[in-house]
Amino acid sequence: MADTVDPRVVRTRQDVLQATLDVLVDEGWDAVTHPHVARVAGYSKATLYAHWPDRLALVRDAFAHWGAIPHLAPVGTLREDLRIELQSFRSSLSDHRLDRALAVLAERTPAVPELRPVRDAFLADGERPLRKRLEPLLDPLEVDVAVHMLCGGMLHAVVMHGRVPADDFIDTAVEAVLTAFDLDPAA
Amino acid sequence: MADTVDPRVVRTRQDVLQATLDVLVDEGWDAVTHPHVARVAGYSKATLYAHWPDRLALVRDAFAHWGAIPHLAPVGTLREDLRIELQSFRSSLSDHRLDRALAVLAERTPAVPELRPVRDAFLADGERPLRKRLEPLLDPLEVDVAVHMLCGGMLHAVVMHGRVPADDFIDTAVEAVLTAFDLDPAA
Repeated sequence: MADTVDPRVVRTRQDVLQATLDVLVDEGWDAVTHPHVARVAGYSKATLYAHWPDRLALVRDAFAHWGAIPHLAPVGTLREDLRIELQSFRSSLSDHRLDRALAVLAERTPAVPELRPVRDAFLADGERPLRKRLEPLLDPLEVDVAVHMLCGGMLHAVVMHGRVPADDFIDTAVEAVLTAFDLDPAA
Repeated sequence: MADTVDPRVVRTRQDVLQATLDVLVDEGWDAVTHPHVARVAGYSKATLYAHWPDRLALVRDAFAHWGAIPHLAPVGTLREDLRIELQSFRSSLSDHRLDRALAVLAERTPAVPELRPVRDAFLADGERPLRKRLEPLLDPLEVDVAVHMLCGGMLHAVVMHGRVPADDFIDTAVEAVLTAFDLDPAA
């Protein structure tokens, strides 16, 4: 049985981590300060400092919180699972501002090396379902290229071109990977 | 015959636009101000203001300057041309800090809508050789997906994973697109 956790603590954590992400995607990295996030979340600065000693701890937990949101379990054919994963990625990018979060991580990480493990863990969480689905079927280099082409293709559309890919784009990308790597769509 | 242009003016333009890109990729968007760029480039603020009335004009010309660098002309087989184009993209990303420029554009454009045409023109310049090579061979949706998967796959590796793709990654991506879209490698 799980340890008992005060639901108010859980609630505080959720509110603060959500506020951190909101500030990050709306206002950028420099706006993520304890006083500002506390104001947005509706808690005292003291509460924030008690849980998160510095900005990096706050941002790290915020991304971990987001990364922990479960993906849909793969239950269908390979074709269906790839389509569903890309559609769900699209929805995170376009409806939940994952595009902004990734753009901030991409832009800030070279200047703030402490962000590197945060970025790497967040990407690993995001890519895990695709990788796990493909790993039994392909060699490691092929998995890597396929995941990069699928995730990178979606990101390129949303983040670089500012355009949400339509269903026919997703379907064409999925068919391309199935054909390219000689995968059984019904696997 | 081309109009005669004072070589000092050409030189000034090149120096200032290169300094603008350097400041942008090293220090970020907020650092691109006329006084700071003038100092880095070694010219007076007055010279900068005379040529570029505001920051957007400066950044727009800087990206146009970069985008105008000629790509290698496609002269080989389709397989060779795709490989060379991705290798050249990799070299721009890793050796000429194109990764930083694209990350800044991706991060800043949603907050600075005037950057959108700059970003769009720069991406169009960058993608043009790939698109032109594939357009006679594929329908428009396939061209779009193939270009997104190739460029996006490379960008995902460098910008999101902080990892420069090796030759076997590039070769696997090129073979994937050739196979996926039933393209003749010798075309």
